[in-house]
Amino acid sequence: MDEQNLRTLLHTLQEGQIDISEVVECLRRLPTESLTSACLDHHRILRTGMPEAVLAEHKTTNQLIEILTAQLRQPNVVLATRVAKDKARAVCKAVDKLRYHESARMLTGNEQAIPEPSNTTAILLVTAGTSDLPVAEEARITLYCLGRKVTTIYDAGVAGIHRILEHQKILQQAPVIIVVAGMEGALPSVIAGITPAPVIGVPTSIGYGTGAGGFSALLGMLNSCAPGLAVVNIDNGFGAACMAAAITRNLSPTTR
Amino acid sequence: MDEQNLRTLLHTLQEGQIDISEVVECLRRLPTESLTSACLDHHRILRTGMPEAVLAEHKTTNQLIEILTAQLRQPNVVLATRVAKDKARAVCKAVDKLRYHESARMLTGNEQAIPEPSNTTAILLVTAGTSDLPVAEEARITLYCLGRKVTTIYDAGVAGIHRILEHQKILQQAPVIIVVAGMEGALPSVIAGITPAPVIGVPTSIGYGTGAGGFSALLGMLNSCAPGLAVVNIDNGFGAACMAAAITRNLSPTTR
Amino acid sequence: MDEQNLRTLLHTLQEGQIDISEVVECLRRLPTESLTSACLDHHRILRTGMPEAVLAEHKTTNQLIEILTAQLRQPNVVLATRVAKDKARAVCKAVDKLRYHESARMLTGNEQAIPEPSNTTAILLVTAGTSDLPVAEEARITLYCLGRKVTTIYDAGVAGIHRILEHQKILQQAPVIIVVAGMEGALPSVIAGITPAPVIGVPTSIGYGTGAGGFSALLGMLNSCAPGLAVVNIDNGFGAACMAAAITRNLSPTTR
Amino acid sequence: MDEQNLRTLLHTLQEGQIDISEVVECLRRLPTESLTSACLDHHRILRTGMPEAVLAEHKTTNQLIEILTAQLRQPNVVLATRVAKDKARAVCKAVDKLRYHESARMLTGNEQAIPEPSNTTAILLVTAGTSDLPVAEEARITLYCLGRKVTTIYDAGVAGIHRILEHQKILQQAPVIIVVAGMEGALPSVIAGITPAPVIGVPTSIGYGTGAGGFSALLGMLNSCAPGLAVVNIDNGFGAACMAAAITRNLSPTTR
Amino acid sequence: MDEQNLRTLLHTLQEGQIDISEVVECLRRLPTESLTSACLDHHRILRTGMPEAVLAEHKTTNQLIEILTAQLRQPNVVLATRVAKDKARAVCKAVDKLRYHESARMLTGNEQAIPEPSNTTAILLVTAGTSDLPVAEEARITLYCLGRKVTTIYDAGVAGIHRILEHQKILQQAPVIIVVAGMEGALPSVIAGITPAPVIGVPTSIGYGTGAGGFSALLGMLNSCAPGLAVVNIDNGFGAACMAAAITRNLSPTTR
Amino acid sequence: MDEQNLRTLLHTLQEGQIDISEVVECLRRLPTESLTSACLDHHRILRTGMPEAVLAEHKTTNQLIEILTAQLRQPNVVLATRVAKDKARAVCKAVDKLRYHESARMLTGNEQAIPEPSNTTAILLVTAGTSDLPVAEEARITLYCLGRKVTTIYDAGVAGIHRILEHQKILQQAPVIIVVAGMEGALPSVIAGITPAPVIGVPTSIGYGTGAGGFSALLGMLNSCAPGLAVVNIDNGFGAACMAAAITRNLSPTTR
Amino acid sequence: MDEQNLRTLLHTLQEGQIDISEVVECLRRLPTESLTSACLDHHRILRTGMPEAVLAEHKTTNQLIEILTAQLRQPNVVLATRVAKDKARAVCKAVDKLRYHESARMLTGNEQAIPEPSNTTAILLVTAGTSDLPVAEEARITLYCLGRKVTTIYDAGVAGIHRILEHQKILQQAPVIIVVAGMEGALPSVIAGITPAPVIGVPTSIGYGTGAGGFSALLGMLNSCAPGLAVVNIDNGFGAACMAAAITRNLSPTTR
Amino acid sequence: MDEQNLRTLLHTLQEGQIDISEVVECLRRLPTESLTSACLDHHRILRTGMPEAVLAEHKTTNQLIEILTAQLRQPNVVLATRVAKDKARAVCKAVDKLRYHESARMLTGNEQAIPEPSNTTAILLVTAGTSDLPVAEEARITLYCLGRKVTTIYDAGVAGIHRILEHQKILQQAPVIIVVAGMEGALPSVIAGITPAPVIGVPTSIGYGTGAGGFSALLGMLNSCAPGLAVVNIDNGFGAACMAAAITRNLSPTTR
Repeated sequence: MDEQNLRTLLHTLQEGQIDISEVVECLRRLPTESLTSACLDHHRILRTGMPEAVLAEHKTTNQLIEILTAQLRQPNVVLATRVAKDKARAVCKAVDKLRYHESARMLTGNEQAIPEPSNTTAILLVTAGTSDLPVAEEARITLYCLGRKVTTIYDAGVAGIHRILEHQKILQQAPVIIVVAGMEGALPSVIAGITPAPVIGVPTSIGYGTGAGGFSALLGMLNSCAPGLAVVNIDNGFGAACMAAAITRNLSPTTR
Repeated sequence: MDEQNLRTLLHTLQEGQIDISEVVECLRRLPTESLTSACLDHHRILRTGMPEAVLAEHKTTNQLIEILTAQLRQPNVVLATRVAKDKARAVCKAVDKLRYHESARMLTGNEQAIPEPSNTTAILLVTAGTSDLPVAEEARITLYCLGRKVTTIYDAGVAGIHRILEHQKILQQAPVIIVVAGMEGALPSVIAGITPAPVIGVPTSIGYGTGAGGFSALLGMLNSCAPGLAVVNIDNGFGAACMAAAITRNLSPTTR
Repeated sequence: MDEQNLRTLLHTLQEGQIDISEVVECLRRLPTESLTSACLDHHRILRTGMPEAVLAEHKTTNQLIEILTAQLRQPNVVLATRVAKDKARAVCKAVDKLRYHESARMLTGNEQAIPEPSNTTAILLVTAGTSDLPVAEEARITLYCLGRKVTTIYDAGVAGIHRILEHQKILQQAPVIIVVAGMEGALPSVIAGITPAPVIGVPTSIGYGTGAGGFSALLGMLNSCAPGLAVVNIDNGFGAACMAAAITRNLSPTTR
Repeated sequence: MDEQNLRTLLHTLQEGQIDISEVVECLRRLPTESLTSACLDHHRILRTGMPEAVLAEHKTTNQLIEILTAQLRQPNVVLATRVAKDKARAVCKAVDKLRYHESARMLTGNEQAIPEPSNTTAILLVTAGTSDLPVAEEARITLYCLGRKVTTIYDAGVAGIHRILEHQKILQQAPVIIVVAGMEGALPSVIAGITPAPVIGVPTSIGYGTGAGGFSALLGMLNSCAPGLAVVNIDNGFGAACMAAAITRNLSPTTR
Repeated sequence: MDEQNLRTLLHTLQEGQIDISEVVECLRRLPTESLTSACLDHHRILRTGMPEAVLAEHKTTNQLIEILTAQLRQPNVVLATRVAKDKARAVCKAVDKLRYHESARMLTGNEQAIPEPSNTTAILLVTAGTSDLPVAEEARITLYCLGRKVTTIYDAGVAGIHRILEHQKILQQAPVIIVVAGMEGALPSVIAGITPAPVIGVPTSIGYGTGAGGFSALLGMLNSCAPGLAVVNIDNGFGAACMAAAITRNLSPTTR
Repeated sequence: MDEQNLRTLLHTLQEGQIDISEVVECLRRLPTESLTSACLDHHRILRTGMPEAVLAEHKTTNQLIEILTAQLRQPNVVLATRVAKDKARAVCKAVDKLRYHESARMLTGNEQAIPEPSNTTAILLVTAGTSDLPVAEEARITLYCLGRKVTTIYDAGVAGIHRILEHQKILQQAPVIIVVAGMEGALPSVIAGITPAPVIGVPTSIGYGTGAGGFSALLGMLNSCAPGLAVVNIDNGFGAACMAAAITRNLSPTTR
Repeated sequence: MDEQNLRTLLHTLQEGQIDISEVVECLRRLPTESLTSACLDHHRILRTGMPEAVLAEHKTTNQLIEILTAQLRQPNVVLATRVAKDKARAVCKAVDKLRYHESARMLTGNEQAIPEPSNTTAILLVTAGTSDLPVAEEARITLYCLGRKVTTIYDAGVAGIHRILEHQKILQQAPVIIVVAGMEGALPSVIAGITPAPVIGVPTSIGYGTGAGGFSALLGMLNSCAPGLAVVNIDNGFGAACMAAAITRNLSPTTR
Repeated sequence: MDEQNLRTLLHTLQEGQIDISEVVECLRRLPTESLTSACLDHHRILRTGMPEAVLAEHKTTNQLIEILTAQLRQPNVVLATRVAKDKARAVCKAVDKLRYHESARMLTGNEQAIPEPSNTTAILLVTAGTSDLPVAEEARITLYCLGRKVTTIYDAGVAGIHRILEHQKILQQAPVIIVVAGMEGALPSVIAGITPAPVIGVPTSIGYGTGAGGFSALLGMLNSCAPGLAVVNIDNGFGAACMAAAITRNLSPTTR
C-alpha cells in the first residue's frame, strides 16, 4: 500500500462512500501479516527502500520456514542473515527457491525482484584481513540483493600499509566505502584520512584476548581521529550494506 | 598541492631538470607545516574534502593560539571543537577574526572561505531532547562551515512518539538525517524505520545512573533493529556532520 | 501454617498448655522441609502470594527429581524454569504428573491447584521480535500458573512502529503490560509513552556483537525517557510474570 | 485534546465541513507546543496519566525558565527533577509560583492541580540507609504531586535485619512498596521475600570502591532470588514513583 | 626442611665445615622439585601451614599425572581442584590411591596424613541455594583435608529469610562462617549482621542474565553494609576453606 | 538488651504477668532508636561484637550531628569513616567530645569505652606504598577503637621485594595480617605465600590509567595464586579492621 | 625487493629507460601477492625483520592451505599460530613440509631458512605456572623460528617466591626476559624489580571467576609498580617473542 | 651496597670475625631507609639500573618533601612524576635544588648524577597529536635523566598518514621507538608495520565519549596486527622511557 492508495482511501471517506470504521480497519490490516510467531512488515520497503530481512540466528527452523515462505509470496527479494549451515540445509529442504551463501551465512530468494544495478561507480568493500571475509561477504550479498554494484579489496590491513595505499585511485572515486576490520580496527581511520568518500566501519569479532568479541575494533573506529567515518554493530555486514545502499539511493535519479 | 602539481613535478624529474633528492624534498615539505607542538596537515581538504579541524579539549591556550593563527593564514575555513568558554575567551583575545559559538562550544574563522550551499534539499538534524542541544549545535555549525544547508527538529524523543511521526514528509525527503539522542537512544531506530534516508546516530552523554556517559545510548543505536543507521562516537556532533557532508558531496554535481 | 495457626499457638503458650521450647520447635519445623540438597520454603505462598519456583538451570537431574517430588506432595502448583529439553525428559521419566512446555523451557505440575482467573481485563504481553518468544512464553506459562489471564501481541518492534501503534486500545485498557525485547530494547519506552498502564520491561539476550547477552536492551530500558516502566533481569520472563501478578493481585477483591 | 474532541473533529471531516488539510493541521499543532529549545508534550497526561516532568540536570537555567513558564500556563501540576540548588535559586527568581524541595532536589508548581489522594492504603517507601534519603525524597514528592498517599520507613538496611522485620504488618498491607538502597542493594530482595506486594527497587549511587555509581546495588536487585520485584535506573526516585502511581491508578475506581 | 635444619646448616658454615657454595646449593635444591612442566613447592606447608594444591582446570591429563605422582611421594595430603569428571577418571586410572569427589570436582590422596580434627567448635558452611552445592563441597572437602570440623546449612537464601534466622545459635558460636551464594549474593550481608564470627563470602557463578558469571554476587558481598565480612574469588570454595583454616589454626594451641 | 533480658521477658509472658502485645512492643522498641533520618541499631554490638559505625561520605552535616549526638549517649565507642576535613570541622563545632583523625578521615568519640587490648600478639598492618597510608590509617584507628593491638610495616611493595622479606619473623607470628595495596595489588599474594596467618587484602584506589579506581588491585587480590587470603572492598580499611577484629575475638579467652 | 632494487629502478626512470607507469606497476605488484582471500605481504621481513605470520584461529582450512602453500614458495621461514589440532592435521595432509607443535598450537615450515643463533646470551622465558605452558611454548617456537636462543624457567609463580629468587644470576644476565603469567599476573612485577633487563609481560587467560579471560593478569602487569616492563595482548606468546627478537636484533652486529 | 660488598661481608662471617646476627642486621639495614611514611629502596639502581622514582599524584606535599629530601642525599638522580603545578611549587619552596618541568609535570634533582649519553643512535619518540605532548614530555625527561639521547616527531597521527611515512629513514634506524597516542591508538600499529625496531606503545587518556580515559587507545595497541610492539599503562610516559632505557642499556658496551 503506497501513498497514492492512501490518498484515494481518504477521499472515499470524505465523499461518504465508506465510514470511519472501515478506514480504520483498512489501514490496520494492510501493511502487516500475522503469522504464528511473527508479524511481517510488508510495507517496510515502501517506507525505507529496503525489504524486511530475517535475522535467523535465534529463530528455530520452523519459525524460519514459516516466515520465509510467507515472504516468498511477496514480490520483493527475500534475505535472511546469520543462518548456520545446518539450519540453512533444513530450511532449504522445506522451502524451494532459496539459495544458501555459505561464507556469508545468508539465504536469499526472489532474486528476480532485485533491481538492475545502475551505471554509477561501484561501492567499495575493503577488509583488513582474510578472517574478516564472512562479514564482508554478508555485506556483498546484501548489496547485490539491493541492486548495488560492488568492488572488493580484501586483506589490506595496516600491518602492511602499502597494500591499501596502492589503491588510492579507487579510494578517491568510490561513492561510499565499507571497511571491515577486526583486531585493532585501525584500517577505517587510515582510509578515511585519504578519501573524500563517506566510510562505514564494520568492526569484526576477529581477535583474541582483549580483542575477542570485537570491542577493541569497535572502539578503534568510534574514536577515529579521521572524520567522515561512521560505524555499525560488530559483525554487522548487513547493516553496513543497508547504510551504503541508503547513501547511494539518489546518486543517479534516472536509474534508481 | 593538488594532483596536477604532482604530475608536473614528476615530469620535470623524468626530463632531467631536477634530481631525485629535490623531488623528495619537495614532496616532504609541502603538505605539512611544523609548529612547536603540531604538524599541520594542509592537504587534508584535498585528500578528504574537509579542512583539518582542531579538537581543543586537551590543548593548552597557547597551543590553540599557535595552531589557529597558522590555519588562518591558509585559504580554508577554520574550526575548533570542544572549546570551553574560558579558553575560547583567552584565544579570541590573542587571535583576531575568530568567532565563538557558545552553545556549540566551537570557534570558527575564515568564514568567507565557506562554499555557497547548493540548492539541494537540506540535511535534517533531529534531537531527542532539549539537553542534546549542544551536540546538535556542534553538528549544525560544522555543516554550515562545510557549506551544507540544515533543517532542524529539536526535542522529539520517543516518550511522545507523535512529535516525530508528524514530520513524516520531511523525514522522507531529507538526503541524510542526523539524529542526536541520549538516555536510551531509541529515536534513531524509530526514525530509521520510517525513512529511506541514511541515518547517522549521535549518542549523547545525557543521562544519569546507568545512562551517564552515553554508553546506553550508543549501544541502543548500534543494536538497532532498523537498518540504514550508522553511529559516531558519543557527543561527536562534528563527526556526524562530516559524515553527512561526505554523503552529500556528490548529490548535485553542478553545484558541489 | 498461616497467621491464624500462629495466633492459636501463641495463645496455648500464654495459657500454659505448652512451654517455650515446644513453641520454638513448632515454629522452626513447619514452614521448611529439609531435603538432601535443598530446604523447601513451603510458606512462601503465604508470605508472598507466589509458590516457590525452581530455577533448574544449575541443578542436577537428581536434585530436580528430589525437589519436585517433594513439592508435588504440597497442595500448590509446581513450576520449574530454565529446564533444558534433555534434563526435562529425564525428570519427567522419573516423576509423574509433570508437564514440559518446550518453547518456555518450563516444567509444571499440580495444575489443578491453579486458581480460576477472575473476570478482570487480561494482562498484556508484548514481544519486539519472534526471537523473544521463549522468554515471553516463560512469562505466559507463569501467569497461567498464577491464575492470571493473558493477551499476547508478538513481533511488534520499533523498526515498524505502526505494528504497535495500531493496538492503542488494548494498550490503554490493560492493567499491566509486560514488554519483552532484545537488540536495542526500545519498545518498552515507546509503549510506556502511550499508555497509563505500568509497563514491565524484560530485556532479552537476543542480539549479537555489542547486543549479545542483553546488556544493550537492559540499559535501553533502564534509561527510558518514558516513566511508568520498571525492569527485571535479562531473559527473566518468570520474574516479570510474578511482578505482574503482584500488581494485579488486588484488582478485583471479590475474585482474587 | 482528549478522545472526544478527536471524534468530533473526524465527524466534521466526514460531513464535509472541513477538508483533509485542516484536519491534518489541527492534529499536528494541538498536543505539542514548540519553544526555542523544546517541544512540550501537553497530551502526555492524557496518554499516560502522568504530566510531562522536566529532567533539569543537563538543561541551562534559561531553558528551564522557558520550559517551566510554559508548563505553568497549562492546568497540570509542574515538576522538575535533579535541580541543583544554585540553578533552582536562579529559576525561582525568574519564575514565580515554583517551590524548591532541597533534599529531593525538585521544583514543583501548580500544586492546586494535584488530585486529592483517595482513601486507599498508602504506598510504602523504604530506604536502606540515611544516605539514600535524597532519592527517596524525590520519590515521595513525585507521589505527592501525583495525588498518592505515602508511608515511609527510613534506614532499615540488612545489616540490622530486625529493623525491617518489625514492620511486617505494614509490609503485608501496602499496595506497592518502593525500596531505595545503595551499597549491596539487598534490602529489596529481603522485603520481596516477605510481602505479597509488588516491590520496586531503586538502586542508589551510595557506596564507594566497587559500589561507587550504584552498579552493585542495581545488579543485586536485578538478580534477586525473590520474585515480585522490578527495578528502575540508579537514583531514579521519580521513575519509581511513576511506576507506583501507575500500579495504583485503578485500585479504587471511585476515587481515582 | 624446617627452620631447625636451616639453623644447623648455617652453623656448619660458621664452623668452616662446609663452604658458601655448598650452603647455596643446599638451600637451592631442597624445597622445590623440578618436573617436566612444574616446579613443586614442597616447603609450602612449612611456610603457610597448607600443602600445595593443584588447580587442575587448565592442565593436561599428563601434567596432572606427573604432578600428583610426585606429590604422593611426599608425606602430605594431596588435593587437586576443578577436576572435570573425564579428566579425573583418566588420572585415577594412571595413579593409584587417589579418590575423586564428584560434586566437589576434587581429587584427594594421602588422606592418612590429614591431622586429627581438634575438639573445637566446627567451622560453619552455609549456602544460599541448592545450585551453590559444588562450590560448598569444594570448601568442605578442603577443610576435611586440612583437619577441620565442618557443620553445614544448605539452601538458606534470603528469599526465605527465616530459614537462616532459625539457626541463630549456631551462627553465634561458630569460630568462622563460610557463606556460599550466587544470584544477588545477599546472604553473607544478612549473616554478618547477626553474628560476631568472621564471615568469608564465596560468590558463585550461579545466575543468568546480569548474574551470569558471578559478578553480581561478588559486588554484593564486597559492598556489604555489614562489617566482619571478607570475600574470595568467584566459585573459590578452596580459597575460602584455606582462609577459614588459617583463621582457626591457633584456636586451641594444644591440639593444632 | 542481651540474651538474659530476653529470656526473663519471655518468662513473664509465660507466667501471665504481661500479655503478648506488651512483649511485642518491648522487643520492637529496645534495640533501635528512630531519628529524623536514621534508625540507630544499638544492639549491633551485642549481635556482632562491633558497634554501629557511621559512613559519613554521603551524609549531610546535619545528619551526622544528629546521629553522632545520639550515639554519644550510648555507652559504646563512636566512630565515623570517610569524613571530609571540612565536614569534620563543622561536626566537631556542633558536637563536643569528638576527635578527628585527619589522615584516616575518621571521627571518634566515647574512647573511654574502648576495651583494654589483651596481651596477645599484635595484628600486623602492611602497606605497599606511601600513598596507601590513608586507607591503612582507617584500619589502624578502627582496630584501636575495637581494642586491638597493631604493628605496622609501611611502604614495602613488590618493586623492592626484599623490603617485605626482611620482616619474615613478624609475618610468621602475626595472628592476622592486613595488607593494603594499590596499583597491581600483588603484595598480599607474596605475603600469603610466606605466612601461615590469614591475610586480609585491601585494594586501594591508588593508581592511574587502567589502575585508577582500584579494580586492578582488587582483581589481583581476588585471583591470587596463594591461598589464605580474602579481600574487602576497595579502600575499605574499616572493613578489613572489623574482619581482623572478628578473627581475633576469641584468641585468648581470658582477656577478650 | 630490497632497497637496492628500488634505487636501481628509480635510476632507470631517471635515465628514460622506462616510463612512470611502468615504475608504478612494478612497485605495485612486487611486494604483495594476491590470493583468493588474502594479499600476502612478502616484503614484511625487509621492512620489519620478521616474516609474515598467519593467525590461523579464524581462518578456514582451505584458506590456510592456500596461504601456507604460497608462503612456502618464498625463501622465508613459515609460521602459523593458534592452529587447533584438528585443523592442523587437515592442513598437514594437504601441504607437505609443515611441522605441527602441539603444545604451542603452531605450524612451521621452511625451517632451513631460520638464521643461525648468534653466540649472545639467551633470551629468558619464565612462566608462573604449569598451565601457562602453551603460551610460553608459542613464544619459544617463535623465537626459534627467528633464530634466537632461549632459556626457560617454568612454574615459578609468586605463591612460592623463592622459586624465582633462586635464579637471580640468570635474571641479571638475560638481554630480555619474557614472563608468562595468568591469575593475578604478579610475577612480571616481582622480576622487573630485581633485574636490569627489559621485561615483556604476557598475561594468560589462565584463571577462573574474575580471573577468567586474563584481564586480571593484564591489569596486574599494566599497573606494575616496577618499571622496565611492557605488556602484550593476553595469550600473545607470538607477540612477546617478536618484541624480544626486535630488542635483541642489534645486540652483536657481527652475527645478526 | 653492591655485590662485592656482599661477598666481603659473607667472608668475614666465614672467617668468624662477625656472627650471624651481625650479618643479618647489616643486610637488613643497608639497602632501605625508613622515613615516617616511606621505606626508601636505595639499592634499586643496583638491582635494576634505574633509580627509585616517586609517583607524586596521591602523596601529600609533606610526604613529598620528606621523601625527596632523603633522596637528594643519595648520589643518584632524583625524579618525581605526576606532580601537579601547585604541589610542585610548594615542594620547591621547601626543598632546594629541584627543577619543575611543567608540561611533563615532573620534578628532577641531582642532575649532575646523570650519566653522559653515549654516541649511539637516539631513541625515537613519536606522538600522534598535540594533546599527547604531556605524556611524551614525561618520557623525554625520564630518558634524559637516565642518560639517553632522544629524537622527537610530534603530531604525526594516522588521519594524515603521510606525516609519519615521510620519516621512514629515522624509523628504520632507531634502536627503539616510543609511540604516544590517544583516540583510537592506531599509530603504533602503523609504525610497527614499517620498522624493524621494537615499538613501545603508550596509550593516552586523550579522547572523549568512548575514548575518554584511554581504554580505546590501549585496546588498539594490545590488539595490533603488527608484531614487535608492547604496551605500557595509559599515560605512562615514565614507564615507556624506563623500558626503552632497559632495551638500550647494552647497545654499546664501551659507553654504557
